[in-house]
Amino acid sequence: MKLEDSHISLAHGNGGRFMRELIDEVFARHLSNDTLDTNADSVALSLPGERIMFTTDGFTVQPLEFPGGSIGSLAVHGTTNDLAVAGADPLFLSLNAFIEEGVEVALLERIVADLGRAATETGVRVAAGDTKVLPRGQGGGIYLATTGIGVYRHPGVLAMNEIRAGDVMLVSGPIGDHGIAVMLAREQFGLRGDIRSDAASVLPLTRALRAVPGVRFMRDPTRGGLVSVAHEIARATGLEITLDEPSIPVRPAVTTVCDMLGYDPFYLACEGRVVAVVAPDAAAEALRAWKALPGGGDASVIGEMRALVHGGRVLLKTELGGLRILEELEDDPLPRIC
Amino acid sequence: MKLEDSHISLAHGNGGRFMRELIDEVFARHLSNDTLDTNADSVALSLPGERIMFTTDGFTVQPLEFPGGSIGSLAVHGTTNDLAVAGADPLFLSLNAFIEEGVEVALLERIVADLGRAATETGVRVAAGDTKVLPRGQGGGIYLATTGIGVYRHPGVLAMNEIRAGDVMLVSGPIGDHGIAVMLAREQFGLRGDIRSDAASVLPLTRALRAVPGVRFMRDPTRGGLVSVAHEIARATGLEITLDEPSIPVRPAVTTVCDMLGYDPFYLACEGRVVAVVAPDAAAEALRAWKALPGGGDASVIGEMRALVHGGRVLLKTELGGLRILEELEDDPLPRIC
Repeated sequence: MKLEDSHISLAHGNGGRFMRELIDEVFARHLSNDTLDTNADSVALSLPGERIMFTTDGFTVQPLEFPGGSIGSLAVHGTTNDLAVAGADPLFLSLNAFIEEGVEVALLERIVADLGRAATETGVRVAAGDTKVLPRGQGGGIYLATTGIGVYRHPGVLAMNEIRAGDVMLVSGPIGDHGIAVMLAREQFGLRGDIRSDAASVLPLTRALRAVPGVRFMRDPTRGGLVSVAHEIARATGLEITLDEPSIPVRPAVTTVCDMLGYDPFYLACEGRVVAVVAPDAAAEALRAWKALPGGGDASVIGEMRALVHGGRVLLKTELGGLRILEELEDDPLPRIC
Repeated sequence: MKLEDSHISLAHGNGGRFMRELIDEVFARHLSNDTLDTNADSVALSLPGERIMFTTDGFTVQPLEFPGGSIGSLAVHGTTNDLAVAGADPLFLSLNAFIEEGVEVALLERIVADLGRAATETGVRVAAGDTKVLPRGQGGGIYLATTGIGVYRHPGVLAMNEIRAGDVMLVSGPIGDHGIAVMLAREQFGLRGDIRSDAASVLPLTRALRAVPGVRFMRDPTRGGLVSVAHEIARATGLEITLDEPSIPVRPAVTTVCDMLGYDPFYLACEGRVVAVVAPDAAAEALRAWKALPGGGDASVIGEMRALVHGGRVLLKTELGGLRILEELEDDPLPRIC
């Protein structure tokens, strides 16, 4: 670590010598690859001549580090997972960092290193970047944005409008770990737990379903959780979705915290899970494919789609056999979890 | 404008109904095009099978609106100009918005509309987007980030290492207008002027040089201004660069404000100018091409590159004929101008 200063100052954002040192010593060092050129205005991308996929996401999680990850790894997983659930292999990322004056350089470096590791593990290159320094009191420490480019590799069409009445919904693993892990890391509740964020690349999960015919649509349930994904599908298709409460995997520790604090786990963010909608006769094979993967052991069929005159609703069939309507999220259960 | 609320709340960032309304009523309405799909995790890009160029930039300008532009138009021009000076035609943008709780929806809408207009004028599509809402007191109103994709269209190679001793440096128009316009818009100096930001697409300027053989390198002098571009070139090439003060176009009003407040215009940001380095025998044709364009009337040859034992310096030949060293920027002359 050669940066002379231990804290970020506004001069690290001014386009001059301090900024160049910050970029060389912190960003380029951890993110270096054949494509990234910190002296170029734009870089050339080597892309296979196929269907190119594009997505972007912003990250404002607080605290910046939490059990199981940091805003750095999240900034890779969040964006590359959006490419993965859309059927693509992620190839390149751009990175924007908004750093508040006074941030410890050591903290920034841990986060950039975590981002670099996540990128390497996911097989994606940071090909372009920019940093801005915000005056003290006008930022939340570090905000990141990443934009991802990938190549479509799913053999069929993945789209919400491929979903039909009778299709079933699957989830790849327990929900809510990320939301609860971040909340507990804030310590404001005086609770301590062993819950780690599920933040991870879902690429192995989405790749596994390429061999399964009858996959209609995939999404990662981040902000707004499982219920928000279900509402998006219900709204787009006009179908009614019934989720089966006993089938939805939730870790006991997550249930306990939710019960104590009055949260509904079905609205909590995951950062390493996939929701898939598949034809009914594809469910068993999809489940088998997921269960064979690390982290896929709790994969489950959790709901079904039905055509109804009054479609567009999301229902929960409860443990006791009753039906309750799951409303679209209005209040924020947990702000700044991603 | 159908958004029910007049101010942004944290609920506009939670992934639920309010967030969807914000995206539909403010973002999708002003940015709509065939590629953007606000329901998709990733969108497919139609790209010609050629050299794909990629760049990103963050925007934190304060105030958010200033004579000649806003953070919205700046977010388009800043990123598409980086593609343009690299020899590309910009095609697609991603957009990240970090919006502080309490921002007036009417202000946000003006800025998004300005961004949409700039995108249309530049011929670029916003193909992906994300918004995050920051808690009050942890943001500067609105921060934006854009990532751009383009296709390389320059007939030759544009790169700093194409620059040779004897090459000359050109600038396409008066420098410093953007920096001074933004500073005056802050009103903290009690000055009022007619200076408007030069923020604009430089694509017509960079396209005009495609017909000129001998163009080595182009860059837009943003943060850190003309001197920072010269230092980047000097550092990368080991050449000494001498800028000719009387030849550098600066509007009298900009000179006046700089004299009053002690700024050096050579360090001030432009957002619609191009610096080009060309072979000596190409300078006349490049100048002619620029002068024929709207806004190119003040284009000038402003400096030359020399091989020296002690290379890497940037010198200014002053009006009086003396030579002074232009140091690399360390202090920030004007924070948050882009």
